[in-house]
Amino acid sequence: MRFELTKEFIDSLREAIELKDGKTTLNLIGNLHAADIAEIYDELDIEEAKFIHLLLDVDKSADVLVALEDDVRERFLKTLPSHIIAKIIKNKMDSDDAADIIGTLPNKIQQEILTHIDDIEQASDIVDLLNYDEDTAGGLMAKELVAVNENWNITKCLREMRKQAEEVEQVFFVYVVDDDNVLKGTLSLKKLLLIAETTNIKTAYNKEVISVNVDSPSEEVANIMDKYDLVALPVIDSIGRLVGRITIDDVVDVIREEAGKDYQMMSGISEDIESSDSVLVQTRARMPWLIIAMFGGILSSRVIYQFTGELSFLPQMAMFIPMITGMGGNVGIQSSAIIIQGLANNSLGIESPFKKLSKEFLIALLNGSILSTIILVFNFFTSDSYVLTISVSIALFSVILFATLFGTFIPLILNKFKIDPALATGPFITTVDDISGVFIYLAICKLLLGVLG
Amino acid sequence: MRFELTKEFIDSLREAIELKDGKTTLNLIGNLHAADIAEIYDELDIEEAKFIHLLLDVDKSADVLVALEDDVRERFLKTLPSHIIAKIIKNKMDSDDAADIIGTLPNKIQQEILTHIDDIEQASDIVDLLNYDEDTAGGLMAKELVAVNENWNITKCLREMRKQAEEVEQVFFVYVVDDDNVLKGTLSLKKLLLIAETTNIKTAYNKEVISVNVDSPSEEVANIMDKYDLVALPVIDSIGRLVGRITIDDVVDVIREEAGKDYQMMSGISEDIESSDSVLVQTRARMPWLIIAMFGGILSSRVIYQFTGELSFLPQMAMFIPMITGMGGNVGIQSSAIIIQGLANNSLGIESPFKKLSKEFLIALLNGSILSTIILVFNFFTSDSYVLTISVSIALFSVILFATLFGTFIPLILNKFKIDPALATGPFITTVDDISGVFIYLAICKLLLGVLG
Repeated sequence: MRFELTKEFIDSLREAIELKDGKTTLNLIGNLHAADIAEIYDELDIEEAKFIHLLLDVDKSADVLVALEDDVRERFLKTLPSHIIAKIIKNKMDSDDAADIIGTLPNKIQQEILTHIDDIEQASDIVDLLNYDEDTAGGLMAKELVAVNENWNITKCLREMRKQAEEVEQVFFVYVVDDDNVLKGTLSLKKLLLIAETTNIKTAYNKEVISVNVDSPSEEVANIMDKYDLVALPVIDSIGRLVGRITIDDVVDVIREEAGKDYQMMSGISEDIESSDSVLVQTRARMPWLIIAMFGGILSSRVIYQFTGELSFLPQMAMFIPMITGMGGNVGIQSSAIIIQGLANNSLGIESPFKKLSKEFLIALLNGSILSTIILVFNFFTSDSYVLTISVSIALFSVILFATLFGTFIPLILNKFKIDPALATGPFITTVDDISGVFIYLAICKLLLGVLG
Repeated sequence: MRFELTKEFIDSLREAIELKDGKTTLNLIGNLHAADIAEIYDELDIEEAKFIHLLLDVDKSADVLVALEDDVRERFLKTLPSHIIAKIIKNKMDSDDAADIIGTLPNKIQQEILTHIDDIEQASDIVDLLNYDEDTAGGLMAKELVAVNENWNITKCLREMRKQAEEVEQVFFVYVVDDDNVLKGTLSLKKLLLIAETTNIKTAYNKEVISVNVDSPSEEVANIMDKYDLVALPVIDSIGRLVGRITIDDVVDVIREEAGKDYQMMSGISEDIESSDSVLVQTRARMPWLIIAMFGGILSSRVIYQFTGELSFLPQMAMFIPMITGMGGNVGIQSSAIIIQGLANNSLGIESPFKKLSKEFLIALLNGSILSTIILVFNFFTSDSYVLTISVSIALFSVILFATLFGTFIPLILNKFKIDPALATGPFITTVDDISGVFIYLAICKLLLGVLG
């Protein structure tokens, strides 16, 4: 049942496309799931993908369009005329998917497509959704849902549902509203199947409904759905009226994206890229942090320059520069990662920032003591310079303390000022720790050379 | 509707608990969602949490137990007698949650609890599930599901469903099986509501069902549910019989955990820890990579030691050590992160490893040329040693090439040998790049000093 993408498959598909052999092409891909076809487009040129797309029936071509990755879809849509896009959307595409697809296009094309959509309700749903920021509940929600009045009985409810449900692809819950469309609760389809037809909805529905406001950020939506194990979440406006619903599949994407963004941020990549992106796109995404790190390296070199005198006197001092900078970077990354992950998962609890810093201070003391003792013993037996042996241990201890506190403090501060704390990971932390590390190390060497040397 | 955890709330709760004031305690937490109560336990001592737990009705206490984080739950369960745990489980807890809860306990306690569960079917479901590895589909699935025979008509189907559905918490799909319990397809509740009661199931159900084998790894399960936008996924045994189903809420946890694990691995943290864990637990999780990095630092120092002669002659050589090691680390992390993320998301496409390496080589050439040119110009105007100026640029270029290829190659190799490629991130990559970086840099300095100096 499940499809595995192979090079052989793509080769024979390409061959069929090149021969403009629609029949063979359809034989190859006709029975595949839309998500698999979307994956295949990823491996083809736009023109090849377009050839396939125009062969598919409208239902399938809509599903494929929804399943495409954003960047591929954007490039792909540019090649399709507005009336074809409108035709695909008109055929029962969910409003949230339609808005996502239209939203990436230039304003002029958006207008053209909307004029082709003659179902006023569908067009106005899409226009409504286009107004919301894509990183909010409004940007994630679909307008399609099944809502019933709390004053109905089950028979009336089932009759109305049959009408409404035709438009809605996946129905997991029925939303219960009052006469003003204010959300009152939910009714599961399972419950509907289990209770008597004459029951009044008012006595049967679940009043403890969790909802989000249309302006809630999508990260909050993801956290709520994850925490309360929800598959669908109703969205209300500022006076409590039901305006849409968010399904878990859209939120899974948010969770993956958020996690991926933090991961790339930590690895010093400034745009969302993939291994399959072009060399130029990938170089552009990697360059900014590399340039910042290089200027950090220049600063480090100016710091070391100040100690050229001591380095001439005791060149072995250079030996431990990589250890000091490396350890500072590692310790700083560890501390910042724990804070940033806690902020992202909303799992920091109610500990105050001051308490967190104190705790990290204790961890740093413990780490610092253990590691600087190990290196002290090691250097005691291997190094011929007592000044260097003592300097390395004191410097390592100090650098671990500094890097830990810095790595904890910066993300907390950024978060306080509503800046994404994940900025303070990876290259930023390691670069600052490099510069401060060499300064601390060489200053301690110089001091001890003055006192003991 | 939604609850926000504050320090004031915890303080008044603690006060009530200390006074053994059950009424006030219940007033404070009685109406909260189980997931909120679980969050509150996180902030309390085990004994305080236990006091609350015994006040809750059995339904709620079961839900709270399921919502607790694994480590908190494990500590908490140790304080509860077996018959209480059995009582909580007996009260309609889903088999997958029951197996998760029992699975963390010592064998002896597991046996004790199971003897207290008198519903043979429930006990045997739990025992079945305990046999599966927790990182497989079998470890994620629940036994509770609604299955109907393909030969029934809708009336019979609805009657049987009413019987089965009472036990199943969330029903999204009905699974259609043949007489041997082999999975044939699915029927959505929506469809059931829309079609006539006399219809035969055989003509109504969706035959294109996506399923997983009970042994499939949980990462694969997550990728499938994400890719095909599924809320529930049936699990079959090796001859196609329906044995369970996985719901999306469990998979969201898998996705979060996988992403979190990769993030922590990259930041050099060896266990799954949180900011709220104790100082000792956190130190233990951070120490292994720090010790490895420190021995990497010692190796670097031995490499530099070999060049003490050159360093005495030109102490300014030390100035660029942090830049070389820092850039090597950054470039290496970027390359490995893209490969590791691609492997985790299954998004590497069908490009061969050789093609990926060639592409990274091109990116490295581009990055290396740009950055070494910038530093060449900078040093040309600021440094008084031509040897150093040229050495730094050649070394930076070489280190970027080496670190990029190494960062691409290692995760691909690890993955080939079925080792988690995320091991090759963070401290491992930066440490190797530090050692090789100083060697490349100082060797080039030495060579050029011999030729030009």
